[in-house]
Amino acid sequence: MAARAWAEASERASRWQPNARGRLEEAALELYGERGFEQTTVADIAQRAGLTERTFFRHYADKREVLFGGSGSLQEAFVNTLAAAPEAVAPIEAVAAALAAAADLFGERHAFACRRQRVIVANAELRERELIKLANLSAALADGLRARGVADPAASLAAEAGIAVFKIAFDCWIEESGERDLAEVIRESLAELKVVTAGG
Amino acid sequence: MAARAWAEASERASRWQPNARGRLEEAALELYGERGFEQTTVADIAQRAGLTERTFFRHYADKREVLFGGSGSLQEAFVNTLAAAPEAVAPIEAVAAALAAAADLFGERHAFACRRQRVIVANAELRERELIKLANLSAALADGLRARGVADPAASLAAEAGIAVFKIAFDCWIEESGERDLAEVIRESLAELKVVTAGG
Repeated sequence: MAARAWAEASERASRWQPNARGRLEEAALELYGERGFEQTTVADIAQRAGLTERTFFRHYADKREVLFGGSGSLQEAFVNTLAAAPEAVAPIEAVAAALAAAADLFGERHAFACRRQRVIVANAELRERELIKLANLSAALADGLRARGVADPAASLAAEAGIAVFKIAFDCWIEESGERDLAEVIRESLAELKVVTAGG
Repeated sequence: MAARAWAEASERASRWQPNARGRLEEAALELYGERGFEQTTVADIAQRAGLTERTFFRHYADKREVLFGGSGSLQEAFVNTLAAAPEAVAPIEAVAAALAAAADLFGERHAFACRRQRVIVANAELRERELIKLANLSAALADGLRARGVADPAASLAAEAGIAVFKIAFDCWIEESGERDLAEVIRESLAELKVVTAGG
């Protein structure tokens, strides 16, 4: 009860703090790293962040969404960039622009991305969730290409190729020290895919 | 009880019938099509096939595996073909050979593949399962390429590209009347991916 009273007092003090979401995310990642995802409850996360469970649920549907909350803005970045690309741009170049825009979202979050990845890799349910999010991103890219007049199967193929590049580049970037830009690693992977599919 | 007694008598008569697995598969697809996957039990499937639940569990771990039982032989076909490809063959051509071998497994099963697909598309849990199986196939392809001395990220990129081609070609093939070979549709999709990634 003391902890709860403290959390509520702390929350009253911080109600207008803009960073409740960031504090919850930080607390969740700490706890997932310390005890594992399954052993952490929403109550634990709220307490560690000095906030209430109610505040948690104002920001996230469940403890899993703390890890996947970024996929909405990722999808938005993909779709908006595709829509804004000049008409003459080839599908794969429009996809490359979309991936670069998405990379900007992670630009300064290398440490966060690494911690998040460790939690996901350790849990089968989270790995499945990640696959579903990637499949949704691929479907959104394909829809965006169709809206640009790209026919199938070219639209689906360019979208799947783009997501494959994104996924593989992201894994490489996470294994690196974080000195290179994610956007640079993505450009390299796309260039490599071109060589690979050409039969090189 | 009468139905059960009949199933048991029928099974005694058919214990050495080699086709229990095929009968269970056919019964399951019929029932998933008629009532939906969720509304079908293992008992329903066994009864429809004229077999016991015990026999069902000798062939399948659960009712979901009736739909995914083929993924083991698919993976085996991928891995064996990769291993058998001549050393000089480029990674993407080795992947193309693996996909062609996998296509042979479905060669004469167009009707089955269509019925299976309808069941999977209608159920979120099954769609997720399909994504996981595809991710596993991609990992197996990448491992096979690494065993051939292909470095990363080329190995992962060629594997992901191959699975993307397989998935998209499979969807196209299912939408067609079944007159074309799956292998032919896969070859076309791969050719299209080459054009797409080259920026055409």
